Amino acid sequence: MSAANDGHMMAYGGDPVTKSAVDAFRELCGLDVEVLFTFGGTGANVVALSCLLGRAESVLCTSWSHINVDETGAPERFLGVKLQDVPSPTAKITPQDIEAACGALGNVHHVQPGVVSVTQATELGTLYTVDEIRAVCETAARRGLRVHLDGARIANAVAAIGGGRETFRRLTFGAGVDAVSFGGTKNGMLGAEVVLLRPGLADGRAEFLRKQAGQLPSKMRYPAAQFVSALENDLWLSTAAHANEMASLLHSLVADLEELRVAPPQVNSMYPYLSPAARAELQAWSFFWDWDLPAGQVRWMTSWDTTEQDVRSFAAGIRETLRGA
Amino acid sequence: MSAANDGHMMAYGGDPVTKSAVDAFRELCGLDVEVLFTFGGTGANVVALSCLLGRAESVLCTSWSHINVDETGAPERFLGVKLQDVPSPTAKITPQDIEAACGALGNVHHVQPGVVSVTQATELGTLYTVDEIRAVCETAARRGLRVHLDGARIANAVAAIGGGRETFRRLTFGAGVDAVSFGGTKNGMLGAEVVLLRPGLADGRAEFLRKQAGQLPSKMRYPAAQFVSALENDLWLSTAAHANEMASLLHSLVADLEELRVAPPQVNSMYPYLSPAARAELQAWSFFWDWDLPAGQVRWMTSWDTTEQDVRSFAAGIRETLRGA
Amino acid sequence: MSAANDGHMMAYGGDPVTKSAVDAFRELCGLDVEVLFTFGGTGANVVALSCLLGRAESVLCTSWSHINVDETGAPERFLGVKLQDVPSPTAKITPQDIEAACGALGNVHHVQPGVVSVTQATELGTLYTVDEIRAVCETAARRGLRVHLDGARIANAVAAIGGGRETFRRLTFGAGVDAVSFGGTKNGMLGAEVVLLRPGLADGRAEFLRKQAGQLPSKMRYPAAQFVSALENDLWLSTAAHANEMASLLHSLVADLEELRVAPPQVNSMYPYLSPAARAELQAWSFFWDWDLPAGQVRWMTSWDTTEQDVRSFAAGIRETLRGA
Amino acid sequence: MSAANDGHMMAYGGDPVTKSAVDAFRELCGLDVEVLFTFGGTGANVVALSCLLGRAESVLCTSWSHINVDETGAPERFLGVKLQDVPSPTAKITPQDIEAACGALGNVHHVQPGVVSVTQATELGTLYTVDEIRAVCETAARRGLRVHLDGARIANAVAAIGGGRETFRRLTFGAGVDAVSFGGTKNGMLGAEVVLLRPGLADGRAEFLRKQAGQLPSKMRYPAAQFVSALENDLWLSTAAHANEMASLLHSLVADLEELRVAPPQVNSMYPYLSPAARAELQAWSFFWDWDLPAGQVRWMTSWDTTEQDVRSFAAGIRETLRGA
Repeated sequence: MSAANDGHMMAYGGDPVTKSAVDAFRELCGLDVEVLFTFGGTGANVVALSCLLGRAESVLCTSWSHINVDETGAPERFLGVKLQDVPSPTAKITPQDIEAACGALGNVHHVQPGVVSVTQATELGTLYTVDEIRAVCETAARRGLRVHLDGARIANAVAAIGGGRETFRRLTFGAGVDAVSFGGTKNGMLGAEVVLLRPGLADGRAEFLRKQAGQLPSKMRYPAAQFVSALENDLWLSTAAHANEMASLLHSLVADLEELRVAPPQVNSMYPYLSPAARAELQAWSFFWDWDLPAGQVRWMTSWDTTEQDVRSFAAGIRETLRGA
Repeated sequence: MSAANDGHMMAYGGDPVTKSAVDAFRELCGLDVEVLFTFGGTGANVVALSCLLGRAESVLCTSWSHINVDETGAPERFLGVKLQDVPSPTAKITPQDIEAACGALGNVHHVQPGVVSVTQATELGTLYTVDEIRAVCETAARRGLRVHLDGARIANAVAAIGGGRETFRRLTFGAGVDAVSFGGTKNGMLGAEVVLLRPGLADGRAEFLRKQAGQLPSKMRYPAAQFVSALENDLWLSTAAHANEMASLLHSLVADLEELRVAPPQVNSMYPYLSPAARAELQAWSFFWDWDLPAGQVRWMTSWDTTEQDVRSFAAGIRETLRGA
Repeated sequence: MSAANDGHMMAYGGDPVTKSAVDAFRELCGLDVEVLFTFGGTGANVVALSCLLGRAESVLCTSWSHINVDETGAPERFLGVKLQDVPSPTAKITPQDIEAACGALGNVHHVQPGVVSVTQATELGTLYTVDEIRAVCETAARRGLRVHLDGARIANAVAAIGGGRETFRRLTFGAGVDAVSFGGTKNGMLGAEVVLLRPGLADGRAEFLRKQAGQLPSKMRYPAAQFVSALENDLWLSTAAHANEMASLLHSLVADLEELRVAPPQVNSMYPYLSPAARAELQAWSFFWDWDLPAGQVRWMTSWDTTEQDVRSFAAGIRETLRGA
Repeated sequence: MSAANDGHMMAYGGDPVTKSAVDAFRELCGLDVEVLFTFGGTGANVVALSCLLGRAESVLCTSWSHINVDETGAPERFLGVKLQDVPSPTAKITPQDIEAACGALGNVHHVQPGVVSVTQATELGTLYTVDEIRAVCETAARRGLRVHLDGARIANAVAAIGGGRETFRRLTFGAGVDAVSFGGTKNGMLGAEVVLLRPGLADGRAEFLRKQAGQLPSKMRYPAAQFVSALENDLWLSTAAHANEMASLLHSLVADLEELRVAPPQVNSMYPYLSPAARAELQAWSFFWDWDLPAGQVRWMTSWDTTEQDVRSFAAGIRETLRGA
């Protein structure tokens, strides 16, 4: 970003830094995607959905999805759209869920499913396989629906599945996904998100929809510069792989504590159970979010800058708290 | 309506017929409610919710509710609002459901519950008792929420519970309900619905919201005249009671057919199970709606103009179809 | 409507009366238009615009237009759309207005003109000629825009221009108009409006948009029956011609009163000037609407059921008031 | 920003940098305003308006206003609201404009004016005096309306009027303004805007509206840090004063070129006229925006980092182009 701060440049993306970032994303996707930098993750999802939705259509998602529970109704407010939330114990949507919702197609009393939104990695820390994503996309396409992938944690997913850029392609556009919200904020950036859109969608109006959603950065070179750095030498994948490893390490250090009932992490999150007293004591010492308060479940996440020392200290703290003084 | 058609009258409700209807509704409610005639049921619900919703608020309802599944996303489209649909085997929302949703109050990442919408009689033909409605309203009020009652079939509910106008009051404003969508269309009218709103709500802007929703009838005397007739001598209750009785009669005539697995109706609807062949044969003969197609469940409804002869013929037809020729 | 009230019929338009009305409109238009009955005029305009608007588009109209000033912001509220209102002394939009607005096409900071909305007869009682409508449509088409015609008073316009059904066609679909809001309410009906939509528009979702807008009549045979009667033997044109004639008669009876400064009516409205005292006295005696209050201008309208006797009495009253006792 | 980048901090504003920025703004305003950082200017305006608007209300603004012409319909899209744009040769709204619009208050067919939005400095580079702002606020308050000030260039206005922080207060909350969009992006920051809201408005839901609008920065310390620096030692005012001076310098250097017809700048913008050939030649050499293309008018702006040398070079270039080789 410091480099991007020198000299005068054209606003609204007409600068060489933005052009580099666009090129880098097109190479990553193996496709001339439309690249729409946005300010935040809520904005990225709203812009992506606005590009994919047709008249009187709804969005299919799981009841765990971030767009459904963590965006204060932003999609409904901006898009005027119903989110049809499907229950799912794994936070993954299935071809069967799509087929069931499509039973309403053509019935004037029901909203018409138009977009399927999947999250990768999911809000429960689970992963779609390449085959699962492809099956969702094929069912959607057969029924005339488009597919959005909320990739706030796509880096962690790609890193966990392995294989680098080729894996990214097979999990997204290669599988038939139409738009990806590609997250930077949760992977070490100052705050930058981007929508990658399959060419030819949104009637050439994607940029206008971004502006309407209040997501057009006038000094676009700053978010762009962050992505240029992240994509260079696949830094985005190595930071995410590190976060995943730190989660595995944490799990290995506390897995014997049975009261936690903590499953091995697939990416960089764990969902252990704590007694109210232990939870309060631990949160006071090192903040983390509650997950399912009535059930006593919390969420532990590692990130690009979590160190092995952080993890060992935290694990020791847990052990001390649970085994008591 | 023929009477209302004579002579010239002021448009948009400035006529004596509308004034009579407003007076009749205020007497019915025992309260100087705001009376907002609308064109249809979808419009009535949208107008009622627009009067009750505050900033960044959501609507709590069951996943069975008409506003959630049968209005093609009209509430989300016009109101820009999330409907938080709660699973319920009886299609009734409980104080516990409200409390659970209110756990999100004050958390900026979650939409804020603002209105509870209950349906009476419910979409499954079940009934809230007066105590149940009151408990919902008390919980809502304690948490700062308002209560909307979708009364497309309120007449059938009042008739089933018994007690006339006093029962209506105890089921609605007396219990703490803030707005009622009072249905005429399903109870014999040519097409007329009305929103009854507790005085002092909507910042004096209820009429403007109705107009914005495209629900201001310019020739308001026509819907008004229908309600004047319906409220006179409690015709609305006797027609609804008749519909309920016809449903009971139908049940009594087919209850022995075990494959139907049909529960006794609380109002004017039943939800029997039919084999695909029997369903097709019966629908071809006398149309009715499917309910849960994969489960083989259909919906039979009686209405204000169903005759005993209709019921006996239909029951005989069912028996013949199921027992075969 | 009495005829339509006998016997049981399918709801939501699946009845023979609705089919007759649809056929009658298709014959009138000389085209297999989609026929969407709606409850009111605001709803008809909102549904028509929702069928024509694309992503991030605006509506061009004059600052006099009904959608701009008389619908309480309903189009903005439901459609989330900007109305770009063009000043016009005649309430008519021109090809030059369209060209000027299209200067913004492609500029991401400006909303993109997508629909031109014209009113015929206009809110000032003026008329577009066939050539003027055609020129508007040709400019719009060349720029990729669609054209909506608000025809709340299309009957009066056709009657004034002369020529019957063929004139209607040349003023609308023959000229290139894409959607017509065809008014019944202002032309003698109990309350019925309809949207006529060029085939192939709205991605097959017009009916869903109508339902979202709260404009799907469940007992559709009632509005349909009114249109069947109106279209039979061109009753809609003879009632409108009568209203126009009554306006001409009124004008001929008061044209010598110079203080009125009243121009000869083109259809069924006049916009005379009155002193505050004269206005108050006349309105108390026979209600009419103010038009431009600061300028002292009012609006006089005649209608399908205005009699020659009505007109002569009103003219005499005016004369008496102005010439005073 | 580099300082803000060290160590781990709470997300969504729970960090000491954000607290410092909030305190600095409250001191600047002399009032415990609600301080809502947003990503961009469009977002700031949308959030501010969403906090001030009531049911079925419109926004009054001039037809020049940025919210009306330069935000791609974002306010209409997100807010579902009509912008009532008033013609004004100076881009300033007057108490008379407000009174005229308020003639519609109480008329159900017209949208209800609810918020007046003024821009300071205006889009034409003009300034409201303190008395003019106060008069607008008093008229608005008397009619029950709230006032929004779009302050994308408030720094330039304060610097031009003189007097520092006290002047800022007298131009905004001291005059009765209810919400200010305070711009950073146009005054040297990487990209940061903030909404300052009079305490007690928006029903305590301002933060929720910001989140719905996609404007909640998760790493809030970065925009906050920029404002901390800008407010320290009134840097925001000295950078703006510099931009204003550079505009004055430029004017003094080209004022004798009569074909430019350029008025002395009040802040940091000028609107000269150029022939198409001269415009093309100059823009190719040093980019600037067109203003009124058919009239041959362009816009020249100076900024915080424009140097005296830049200005002298540009003026020389103009002279050379116009006087020709």
